[in-house]
Amino acid sequence: MSPLLRVSSDSSPTSVAGAIAGFIKEEGKVELQCIGAGAVNQATKAIAIARGYVASNGYDLYSIPAFVDVEINEEERTAIRFTVKPRE
Amino acid sequence: MSPLLRVSSDSSPTSVAGAIAGFIKEEGKVELQCIGAGAVNQATKAIAIARGYVASNGYDLYSIPAFVDVEINEEERTAIRFTVKPRE
Repeated sequence: MSPLLRVSSDSSPTSVAGAIAGFIKEEGKVELQCIGAGAVNQATKAIAIARGYVASNGYDLYSIPAFVDVEINEEERTAIRFTVKPRE
Repeated sequence: MSPLLRVSSDSSPTSVAGAIAGFIKEEGKVELQCIGAGAVNQATKAIAIARGYVASNGYDLYSIPAFVDVEINEEERTAIRFTVKPRE
């Protein structure tokens, strides 16, 4: 199981970037789950910022987006899940 | 120089996905440029869909987001540019 961060349109990209960098160092991988355009945008900015945070450790991050169905308040929604990993 | 696709909030994810798949097969790489949350969301969906299109060729796609400054109508704007490449 990879650690999962739920990102919303209100999430701060720099805070999410810090969490991404931490999980990459500790677990080697992290997943970000987003519902809606605003959330996808914040997650994307966070990944771009996190690339800078981990560059000094010799990592470059890449992301793989996929659709996932999630249930929220008994309704089915389609989320975007980004798998973020380092390329060495 | 990689081919560059400009994606907007009005772009169709399936059409962009088709263009991504074509460029990956021909050039091995493509870049997507987006300004605004709607555009980033459509580009992300397009990458997720394109992964399915190229899977039968044995490719898995990954993306690397970065900030770039672009000039539009003599105004400086910050865009997100995704570099999309295959992992074999």
